[in-house]
Amino acid sequence: MINTGDTAWVLTSAALVLLMTPGLALFYGGMVRSKSVLNMMMMSFGALALISVLWVLYGYSIAFGDDLGAGLVGDPTQYLGLKGLMEDVTSEAGGLPPMAFVAFQAVFAIITVALISGAIADRAKFGTWMIFAGIWATVVYFPIAHWVFDFSLDDHVGGWIANTLVAIDFAGGTAVHINAGAAGLALALVLGKRRGFGKEAMRPHNLPLVMLGAGLLWFGWFGFNAGSALAANNLAAVAWVNTLVATAAAALGWLATEKVRDGHATSLGAASGVVAGLVAITPACSALSPVGSIVLGAVAGSLCALAVGLKYRFGYDDSLDVVGVHLVGGLVGTIGVGFLATAAAPAGVDGLFYGGGVDQLWRQAVGAFAVLAVSFVATYAIGLVLQRTVGFRIDEEDEITGVDLVTHAESGYDLHSTSGTRSGAGASTLNAGQPANERKVTA
Amino acid sequence: MINTGDTAWVLTSAALVLLMTPGLALFYGGMVRSKSVLNMMMMSFGALALISVLWVLYGYSIAFGDDLGAGLVGDPTQYLGLKGLMEDVTSEAGGLPPMAFVAFQAVFAIITVALISGAIADRAKFGTWMIFAGIWATVVYFPIAHWVFDFSLDDHVGGWIANTLVAIDFAGGTAVHINAGAAGLALALVLGKRRGFGKEAMRPHNLPLVMLGAGLLWFGWFGFNAGSALAANNLAAVAWVNTLVATAAAALGWLATEKVRDGHATSLGAASGVVAGLVAITPACSALSPVGSIVLGAVAGSLCALAVGLKYRFGYDDSLDVVGVHLVGGLVGTIGVGFLATAAAPAGVDGLFYGGGVDQLWRQAVGAFAVLAVSFVATYAIGLVLQRTVGFRIDEEDEITGVDLVTHAESGYDLHSTSGTRSGAGASTLNAGQPANERKVTA
Amino acid sequence: MINTGDTAWVLTSAALVLLMTPGLALFYGGMVRSKSVLNMMMMSFGALALISVLWVLYGYSIAFGDDLGAGLVGDPTQYLGLKGLMEDVTSEAGGLPPMAFVAFQAVFAIITVALISGAIADRAKFGTWMIFAGIWATVVYFPIAHWVFDFSLDDHVGGWIANTLVAIDFAGGTAVHINAGAAGLALALVLGKRRGFGKEAMRPHNLPLVMLGAGLLWFGWFGFNAGSALAANNLAAVAWVNTLVATAAAALGWLATEKVRDGHATSLGAASGVVAGLVAITPACSALSPVGSIVLGAVAGSLCALAVGLKYRFGYDDSLDVVGVHLVGGLVGTIGVGFLATAAAPAGVDGLFYGGGVDQLWRQAVGAFAVLAVSFVATYAIGLVLQRTVGFRIDEEDEITGVDLVTHAESGYDLHSTSGTRSGAGASTLNAGQPANERKVTA
Repeated sequence: MINTGDTAWVLTSAALVLLMTPGLALFYGGMVRSKSVLNMMMMSFGALALISVLWVLYGYSIAFGDDLGAGLVGDPTQYLGLKGLMEDVTSEAGGLPPMAFVAFQAVFAIITVALISGAIADRAKFGTWMIFAGIWATVVYFPIAHWVFDFSLDDHVGGWIANTLVAIDFAGGTAVHINAGAAGLALALVLGKRRGFGKEAMRPHNLPLVMLGAGLLWFGWFGFNAGSALAANNLAAVAWVNTLVATAAAALGWLATEKVRDGHATSLGAASGVVAGLVAITPACSALSPVGSIVLGAVAGSLCALAVGLKYRFGYDDSLDVVGVHLVGGLVGTIGVGFLATAAAPAGVDGLFYGGGVDQLWRQAVGAFAVLAVSFVATYAIGLVLQRTVGFRIDEEDEITGVDLVTHAESGYDLHSTSGTRSGAGASTLNAGQPANERKVTA
Repeated sequence: MINTGDTAWVLTSAALVLLMTPGLALFYGGMVRSKSVLNMMMMSFGALALISVLWVLYGYSIAFGDDLGAGLVGDPTQYLGLKGLMEDVTSEAGGLPPMAFVAFQAVFAIITVALISGAIADRAKFGTWMIFAGIWATVVYFPIAHWVFDFSLDDHVGGWIANTLVAIDFAGGTAVHINAGAAGLALALVLGKRRGFGKEAMRPHNLPLVMLGAGLLWFGWFGFNAGSALAANNLAAVAWVNTLVATAAAALGWLATEKVRDGHATSLGAASGVVAGLVAITPACSALSPVGSIVLGAVAGSLCALAVGLKYRFGYDDSLDVVGVHLVGGLVGTIGVGFLATAAAPAGVDGLFYGGGVDQLWRQAVGAFAVLAVSFVATYAIGLVLQRTVGFRIDEEDEITGVDLVTHAESGYDLHSTSGTRSGAGASTLNAGQPANERKVTA
Repeated sequence: MINTGDTAWVLTSAALVLLMTPGLALFYGGMVRSKSVLNMMMMSFGALALISVLWVLYGYSIAFGDDLGAGLVGDPTQYLGLKGLMEDVTSEAGGLPPMAFVAFQAVFAIITVALISGAIADRAKFGTWMIFAGIWATVVYFPIAHWVFDFSLDDHVGGWIANTLVAIDFAGGTAVHINAGAAGLALALVLGKRRGFGKEAMRPHNLPLVMLGAGLLWFGWFGFNAGSALAANNLAAVAWVNTLVATAAAALGWLATEKVRDGHATSLGAASGVVAGLVAITPACSALSPVGSIVLGAVAGSLCALAVGLKYRFGYDDSLDVVGVHLVGGLVGTIGVGFLATAAAPAGVDGLFYGGGVDQLWRQAVGAFAVLAVSFVATYAIGLVLQRTVGFRIDEEDEITGVDLVTHAESGYDLHSTSGTRSGAGASTLNAGQPANERKVTA
């Protein structure tokens, strides 16, 4: 018998996490210049489309098939095309239908890939991005998901981080955020800096869109974190509250850091602080108290606010701060568990600050840096091969014109008829040279 | 006793489907020129408001009251004003509160009406649209919902497609999409082409809005499809995964078709492909395997990408492609069940490709074309009567000025003060002749 | 044992209500001029961040700790830092994890504070707003939540409105809407009118954003109202349907009032009518039939459409109509229960129109006006002290320049590169004098 309450919660959570990718598209899309907004959003939507299909075909099987040895990769043939998973059997009494778990994990794979795109705003070929997304998911994400999320059970053998190292990564600080952050750094290095990076202002073209994106991400993240309980229980409720309050504290931390440093608390800072807090609490939300979550969030918000400046110092153009927010936030959260975990929380482990010594801390650090290193190296290699073969970066002239027009033959906005101007006058002049981006005629 | 898990899932799903109508308003609103965005959104919001009230008053009763004979219409007096449905009784042990089903079906009626509006962008009188919406829901949607969604049970007798024909239409390929698509075609013919149709470019004014709308539609559609299980069970989970992957494949199919045909993959194409895939999998998500769903989605995405060009060839101005996406996508999905259904899926039926012969195929085709024909004829008649009496289309001069300003005394955007311009200078000039569309003073 | 279905529904509802605050930020943000959109949104996001933290630290304890006497305030030390609430115990068999209730009530506190900000658009110092938000939540909201939402149970003693007065306020007509509306009026008086109020047009700068906000609010409000059942049961389902149909009727009522009065039905009116209906049905959704909800909604929509003009007559600048919508709508709903309640609904009480006499009516009125009076007086005092000490209103010159640029060093939009203009030409000229509002460099 299926537990209907748990199933309802997991299916709801999967839908919430699905929404995070369009939310991310808005968050990223609003931050770039208006001539790149569509390409930025398309990298998220493209990942959503492609990774969904790969997940069904073989991705789930690589991640959650029986381990092929050493805890590194699952059997890609076991659930090929999701075979055998439509049947109404559960691994335990009162459990979930297998497809509910398939659904929930699918959307994790999708968003991880989409997150990377923020590092290469304004300058990536869409076709190459799609090839990259498929390869990266196959050789980096699916195996790492196996490491972190595939728990051994009965005669099923899972991945090494979950079962051998026994690091605590409740909802994906390593597999999702450190992974995407390290990959973003690698791709930013492969593609190189945007023309004008560090010299001219590259202002977000639509900050309300950024805030909307942050709002949708926060909303969806309750599915990400509390849904990772895979049940509607006390663990889910604790994760929910920790996800609320760590995020809130991170937003306050980022705004306070800005205010002290720059004299202004910005809306971009609020939105970024929200995401930094969500990232940091992701691995930790089962292991901390709400007060511990406030501490973790405040630290993450402040550190990430400082970290987003590193790209200017070191000269890598991580355009939308995938490194500063996801890599740094993921490290803060994953390693923070080693300090702030309390046995009073559902995970039942004490960290260094609660008298648990360094036992959990080193496990957290090993998991975090293993994923960081593997992801960085593998991504750099994939990116370099693509750049040298099919080409990853658009031409400089195309970059000046704008990637939307060049790659998608569209532009984000045409607001000139707003005031009811009769056509034929100014409007057509303003639009001269622009594409007719309504749907094409086949005739 | 109520099953709380099933109830949680159905109430959640109903909320998700409710969100689809604002999502549709954005999807449609972003696609028109900026001088029509508000009118476009108002047709969705107006339908949302009006159909909700009619549903409570008599719509639910027409759709789900005891059949009056021949499976064509339910008894409109049985549940007049939802009488008797507030009581805490369920038709079966472990079932849903009656009002949860009322809620879930209400939002289906709403969105079906709203979908039609895409065919008549830029040129419809809002008052006539509201009259149309009320009449159409009453004489077309409520009865057809009875045909498709009202299953006979115990001494309750339902509609002919669900019970006599026994076509598989899990979540409304016929009642919702073919129905709305055929109605859209009829209204497009009644109202005629927009001024300049086929001659001048009518570019979407805000593509990020279109993509946001597509994202919200996808999110909400998990309620639409997986919620149609009316329980949080294996069927819901399978429908969830099929809804993910068919949609993803359709987006890829649309983008590939564009790339081959036009040389560019567009964001409008991605958003349209998403909706085409969602439409196609709607009737089929209980009957296909995930791999079958990929096939169905890819076919739907490609065919709809081609179908949206038909309006230029045949000269009907289905402005936002209600025909090309909902009618064609609905036909692909409904008839596709006859080919791609597999007995391994929860519906337990084999289609032609799985050795089931043509038995299911002809049932699917009869259901699809019956709804198509009835909806087209009835809608054409209603539209024509309204056009000849109160008038449905706005004046040509008003169309040039823009329907927002003329009908709603508003314009979508006033972005001129963005840069902190001191008022009195350029801004007021730019705004000259525009309405003060803040809330009116009663004094 | 926890009831997983109820827990799933409450956690889902809490996420839905969380989304209402970003939704409100868009609803409010789209209504102001573009030079204030970020500040407007930041008041919501700032409240979200700050109140979440205060709720965990002591807010929950003030609201739901054991009463300190007279039903006025809970013990702030009992659940300090949410101590003892992570344990997997429920107050009753088949109940919720304690943290699920903490989560659900947290988001109520957040949105109530955020609602107030609409009254002081364009002219508040962000820092002072944040101080105000913290003080107001502590001395006004947390105690009033105790009055209304803290029911006595076993040896737990709750607040006076819920337990002594026994007014019906299912989801917060008094504690949330009348409270926020009265506070908004007080702050509007303290801060004074915007420069040009009543003389120059202050048009919404982005009406699609307003409608999107209204859509998200409606979606989230199903969590607010139906989630207040704290279970996935018949009560939740009835509340769901009433929330749909009252809102729909209110939108129709507002649009009809506009059409009769002004000759046009506006999109701003539709969005406002939606919110007015949601406010009115909030206290009443457990006590009315769906037909009664239609009546209540239609009355609320019409009355609020008239009430938003009062500010011009009486000369207070309640900029975005917190008074006209939330105070008036909250009064209509709370007192409307006394007229329209029917014993056939889950609350089981007959109002005046159903033969129940004035017994419930006076309880409703006492609850409503008690909260109104206390909130107004306390808020006025807090606001005045802040204005006289740290200052609440920005300088007149800053108001002309725009609060976004002055307070946050940002502007909402930079759409000038849309058409792929090569940088260096017109774009940079248009942007001259604007801030580089990308993330700051630390170097």
